[in-house]
Amino acid sequence: MARTSPHDDAASAPVLKLRLRLTVGELIAVGPGKIDLLEALDATGSITAAAKSLGMSYRRAWLLIDELNRSLRTPAVATAAGGAQGGGSVLTDDGRRLVQLYRQIEATAQKAAAVEIEALKGMLAP
Amino acid sequence: MARTSPHDDAASAPVLKLRLRLTVGELIAVGPGKIDLLEALDATGSITAAAKSLGMSYRRAWLLIDELNRSLRTPAVATAAGGAQGGGSVLTDDGRRLVQLYRQIEATAQKAAAVEIEALKGMLAP
Repeated sequence: MARTSPHDDAASAPVLKLRLRLTVGELIAVGPGKIDLLEALDATGSITAAAKSLGMSYRRAWLLIDELNRSLRTPAVATAAGGAQGGGSVLTDDGRRLVQLYRQIEATAQKAAAVEIEALKGMLAP
Repeated sequence: MARTSPHDDAASAPVLKLRLRLTVGELIAVGPGKIDLLEALDATGSITAAAKSLGMSYRRAWLLIDELNRSLRTPAVATAAGGAQGGGSVLTDDGRRLVQLYRQIEATAQKAAAVEIEALKGMLAP
């Protein structure tokens, strides 16, 4: 779909999105979905609430976290046992470091390529 | 799926993939699919052959190119009329510049974030 609105408002300003995926063979060990999930988990304190905030099933969130934990040297998420819904889940220090590194790479990349990114945006029709 | 092979061969070495998308509202004006298509078109000289080399239908390739051309100030692809299959398609100077800028952003970004990327890779299980 092309833009149909004639006015150049903020909603139609071009945005460069940069997505990182760390793959090992066929496995996407770390990608935007898992990082978003870790951030949601950090904000909510439970897999159930994190999954809900992302419109994701509990099962999918659990599988992503399990896959991530097993891809890493040390787990990104620690889950306490007990309670009806389990005892809640928290990011470990390494989980926090993982999120931080990932977001840092995004920011560094955008900043380093800022001139080329502007040139690319400048090629778009006004 | 976690890696099951105990030996650390090249196939299982972690790779950081970086994908760029230039979006305008809901439209992905420029993304990896369109750039791959432009490169295939440059290599093959026709939309038919480019689509085939990417396992894409002619119709989808044509639609992507049409959408791209209309997103840009000046078209990325010029198609000559005539002949049974049309007269072939070529990248314009701006099409070539678009591909070059896109690949440059990828390379600049990877290089700038090289230290953080290695740190992220180092968090993966051996």
